[in-house]
Amino acid sequence: MEKIKISIEFCTLCHWTPRAVWMTQELLYTFQNDVAEVKLIPTDGGVFRISVDDEVVWDRKESGFPEPKAVKQKIRDVIDPKRSLGHSDK
Amino acid sequence: MEKIKISIEFCTLCHWTPRAVWMTQELLYTFQNDVAEVKLIPTDGGVFRISVDDEVVWDRKESGFPEPKAVKQKIRDVIDPKRSLGHSDK
Repeated sequence: MEKIKISIEFCTLCHWTPRAVWMTQELLYTFQNDVAEVKLIPTDGGVFRISVDDEVVWDRKESGFPEPKAVKQKIRDVIDPKRSLGHSDK
Repeated sequence: MEKIKISIEFCTLCHWTPRAVWMTQELLYTFQNDVAEVKLIPTDGGVFRISVDDEVVWDRKESGFPEPKAVKQKIRDVIDPKRSLGHSDK
């Protein structure tokens, strides 16, 4: 299967850089062998948005800030809906 | 000035993910307003390589692991050689 490209856009004016970097580490840990790249994109306007191959899987403006578990489930559903995420599914 | 694109390629077999994520956070902190994106690229083969706009500014195989200060100076020299990095220049 083609490896996925994840992007995380985040508002630097809101001081969400540490949060975006934390999410990056979580996603790299869980999807190390599935990921071609994780791209961090500083922006403004209260944006915190995560996409897989240009498809938005999480947008703070719709769903608030995610726990890593929720984002991992969304990404797993893109990659391989049958895969267990262990603790992240419980 | 055009914002720069930074990429960090790192060997996951070597368990360098935390190191790559740490460097990402350091570079986003220092160059927040200069950066269009920081891209993390998992790879293998003992690679730890940092590029700016596809030009390699640090390669572990040539120079060992960098302190963030050394990478910041290299990137500063690309962006604006006259800029002071404060403590990172001392």
